[in-house]
Amino acid sequence: MTTTALHPLVDAHRETLEQAKAALASRSYYSAYPESPSPKIYGETAAADGLAAYEAHLNAPYENLASQPNDGMVASSEVSPYGPALGVSYPHLDLDSALAAATAAIPGWRDAGPLVRAAVCTEMVAQINKRSFEIANAVMHTSGQPFVMSFQAGGPHAQDRALESIVAGLVEQERIPESVIWEKPGRGEPVRMQKDYQIVPRGIALVIGCNTFPTWNAYPGIFASLATGNPVVIKPHPRAILPLAISVDIMRSVLADAGFDPNVVLLAPERDGEGLAKVLAERPEIAIIDYTGGPAFGSWLEKEAGGNGKLVYTEKAGINSIVIDSTDNVRGMTGNLAFSFSLYTGQMCTAPQNVYIPEGGIDTPDGTLSFDEVAGAIAKAIEKFNGDDAKAVEILGACVNDDVKARANDLAAVAAEVGGEVVLNNRKVEHPKFPDAVVRTPGLIKIDAAKEEGYTREFFGPVAFLIATKDTDESLTKMRDTIKAHGAMTMAIYSTSEDVLVKARAACAAAGVALSENLMGSVFVNQTAAFSDYHGTGANPAANAAYTDAAFVSNRFRVITSRRHI
Amino acid sequence: MTTTALHPLVDAHRETLEQAKAALASRSYYSAYPESPSPKIYGETAAADGLAAYEAHLNAPYENLASQPNDGMVASSEVSPYGPALGVSYPHLDLDSALAAATAAIPGWRDAGPLVRAAVCTEMVAQINKRSFEIANAVMHTSGQPFVMSFQAGGPHAQDRALESIVAGLVEQERIPESVIWEKPGRGEPVRMQKDYQIVPRGIALVIGCNTFPTWNAYPGIFASLATGNPVVIKPHPRAILPLAISVDIMRSVLADAGFDPNVVLLAPERDGEGLAKVLAERPEIAIIDYTGGPAFGSWLEKEAGGNGKLVYTEKAGINSIVIDSTDNVRGMTGNLAFSFSLYTGQMCTAPQNVYIPEGGIDTPDGTLSFDEVAGAIAKAIEKFNGDDAKAVEILGACVNDDVKARANDLAAVAAEVGGEVVLNNRKVEHPKFPDAVVRTPGLIKIDAAKEEGYTREFFGPVAFLIATKDTDESLTKMRDTIKAHGAMTMAIYSTSEDVLVKARAACAAAGVALSENLMGSVFVNQTAAFSDYHGTGANPAANAAYTDAAFVSNRFRVITSRRHI
Repeated sequence: MTTTALHPLVDAHRETLEQAKAALASRSYYSAYPESPSPKIYGETAAADGLAAYEAHLNAPYENLASQPNDGMVASSEVSPYGPALGVSYPHLDLDSALAAATAAIPGWRDAGPLVRAAVCTEMVAQINKRSFEIANAVMHTSGQPFVMSFQAGGPHAQDRALESIVAGLVEQERIPESVIWEKPGRGEPVRMQKDYQIVPRGIALVIGCNTFPTWNAYPGIFASLATGNPVVIKPHPRAILPLAISVDIMRSVLADAGFDPNVVLLAPERDGEGLAKVLAERPEIAIIDYTGGPAFGSWLEKEAGGNGKLVYTEKAGINSIVIDSTDNVRGMTGNLAFSFSLYTGQMCTAPQNVYIPEGGIDTPDGTLSFDEVAGAIAKAIEKFNGDDAKAVEILGACVNDDVKARANDLAAVAAEVGGEVVLNNRKVEHPKFPDAVVRTPGLIKIDAAKEEGYTREFFGPVAFLIATKDTDESLTKMRDTIKAHGAMTMAIYSTSEDVLVKARAACAAAGVALSENLMGSVFVNQTAAFSDYHGTGANPAANAAYTDAAFVSNRFRVITSRRHI
Repeated sequence: MTTTALHPLVDAHRETLEQAKAALASRSYYSAYPESPSPKIYGETAAADGLAAYEAHLNAPYENLASQPNDGMVASSEVSPYGPALGVSYPHLDLDSALAAATAAIPGWRDAGPLVRAAVCTEMVAQINKRSFEIANAVMHTSGQPFVMSFQAGGPHAQDRALESIVAGLVEQERIPESVIWEKPGRGEPVRMQKDYQIVPRGIALVIGCNTFPTWNAYPGIFASLATGNPVVIKPHPRAILPLAISVDIMRSVLADAGFDPNVVLLAPERDGEGLAKVLAERPEIAIIDYTGGPAFGSWLEKEAGGNGKLVYTEKAGINSIVIDSTDNVRGMTGNLAFSFSLYTGQMCTAPQNVYIPEGGIDTPDGTLSFDEVAGAIAKAIEKFNGDDAKAVEILGACVNDDVKARANDLAAVAAEVGGEVVLNNRKVEHPKFPDAVVRTPGLIKIDAAKEEGYTREFFGPVAFLIATKDTDESLTKMRDTIKAHGAMTMAIYSTSEDVLVKARAACAAAGVALSENLMGSVFVNQTAAFSDYHGTGANPAANAAYTDAAFVSNRFRVITSRRHI
């Protein structure tokens, strides 16, 4: 494999790739895509243009994707959590011909080599970035996220994670020399051989998207597989197709413009009840699976597809935790927590659920706050933070599905189920623009640490448990054991004691969960920064992989050596 | 995790580690352990001392390992393929207390950090190297390898692969900074956080050894897991315990001398019929499994243990192949092949089995050689190479088990089974020193390419099939499809045509197998060099991993972040 003239996109993105590589190596701050939706950055008309582009998709077939091998259109079941049905229909893949087309696309994509692939992938992300407002509206009206979050998490932050994956894949491949002259000293002349190392993909990769973060949780797997030479078939969640349809549309046109087969990327929307993810996961052409979603299907994938030699990367459910031991800033703490509970109605995979508090209370600059005073302070912070409906909806977004709605509408039932007591009820918030949206503030349930059957399950949505423990040691032990057994994406502690922090770090290392300490201000436990924070650890049952470490990318390709005497 | 004073072993092995890292990055020639058993290198009395040390183990309990938590001694079923039973007994692990002891050893080994672990592991290999003659005798009398091969493959070459794994693991861990100050620009003051990254092991690793290469195939997994912080339990093949017992003995004493808990490494010999590998694989404490052996249990491990979230690295069976298209050196080719077939009686996992030859013959400098002339030339080369019994036994070694003996004693039955014809029968060779050894030269069976049910199975031992194809295109296609379906560790081609070589490289990339082209002289298809050649590709059914790439090591540890404002 000799690299002749490099693709023009390599020059276009060389600097971005170099900066991203440096950031990944140092784990320092880096973002190539501005997170502010400001017109100064994205252009005066960007917001309006993006909204118009989004609206142009509604109640129409998504024609641009009809170039995919398909057997007709499928009407999507996408209904905005803010109200209206989207009314989009998508071309439904003809699986045999689509997988044959993706297979046929392998040699060209493989032979492009790591650097050209990275450059083409970066161009895809750059083009996706230009359409961040359009995608933000699509994310908002499929996930129920509030608009600014849809823009940030569905746009630039997802794009940062995409670039992180591209670069992680590039770095791994660049560690393999293309060729070496191997010279073994002997009695007489050395034995000399030329050895060439060709990077080959695993096969076709399947990415199974989720409802709540259609782009953010899909891009890492998509770009990790693409960067390492694998065509990708993307099976979006049936209620969150549009954000990935727009993304795939962009990716396919970048591929075509760059001289590659667009069937390197395919979107696989499904008919209602079709169970397409399972069908695809069982196809022999599929060699890699990235999945975000519920634990039942995730475990099936790990066992069945993983047991059959496919690489399976899953992010499932978890019980994110907070341990409160003491604080020098009660307001800072409760304000920070109120935001974390409220943001997108607790529907982030990283939102905290279990809050362990000593029954004897916590030390603060104003003396000991009793358990009930701590609970009250958190409740008050949530109420205050969400006091103004018009402002609150821009944080809370809307409930994504009926399960969340049911829970938010009857917190007393949840409390009864787990054996707890409602401390703060979910408040109904009227959305000034979308009267059909179900918007609720977070609720709090007080529960005794002994009632583990209650709080060692995931209650997705705006419910948190304030768990009364004997002391912080018990808090840490319960947290550790619960996460070891049931998983978590995040954990945070508030403590003024260095001893306690040291114990917390040890407990988190044992539980296999990342730790945030004494977060105040604008850093929240549910948010991670690409290039610096890993998303997930792969060390507890919530996720078997992390965005983005070497293990996430290094097995997606293989190396084939050919050697000969010279 | 702050590194205070470094361990003295770091200085002792810094240069070796740096050299090995450089070799791994460039894939150039490197060996830290001389492969020649010459007295000039290992000392005048090394051979005799090693033999005496080996003999001292015989017909005695292996007392040094009694410091392992055990429930008594178990008499081993080791019988030398050269004749006598070894008569060693080993302490049998008490599983509950042994796994508890290994678990208790985790924090100390984890907190040593990557560099200290790499240095301690390198010290283990250095001490193992000093006992290469003792281990060589143990390898010889368990595997049936001839002595020089036992020394080289069981000693320095295995040690090279061990160091390769250590360094591959070190490089991966060193890519994670211990700490970073993360600074995100904002409107006013930047947001600044300190983030610490702690490397944690997966848990306890299990390494399941094989009969034919007890050390060579076990060291990579052992040292990959150790270097990344995981304690290791080694379950040797019941007929090849001693080489690993000596290795574990050395490793435990290096651990103790270096101030670590020796239970970081444990040997788990088993009672006859105990099925200990399965019992261990199902223990929840076991997080990683490395396996070399038959495909039935290997597939069970992949499906059951792999499906249950354990990392499983397997090397099973394969159908190694040769494609003969043409050559400019008939003697060079047949001589090279004769060695590859003969070495250790074809009992290497890398030994060729299927030789594809066009029915119309091949081009040579002396004109076309017919299929039968090619077959005859290979047969003659094998006969000549093994003409002298006393010399032949030093290449052939002895048949390792009853299956191989049965096949070598009745090649006609194999030919009848597959629908082929014996071209060269296995010749019985008398071992001048070990009259009980079953020593046989390789046999050749001619078979038509259409009889695929015959030759698409592994026939372990001294049997090769000369497969008559329509032409080289058919040879490449049959080779590719057979390897895709059934796996292979190696493939070689002989051709003077650049066009054919290009096609062969493409076929091997598609089959996922490494290619050796026109090997002559002292480089053989069944041998790979650490740091330069991968052993296996992980891209076909013979093995799901390769010694040693990033994918082999990078998932054996996880990273736990803790972050806080500064």
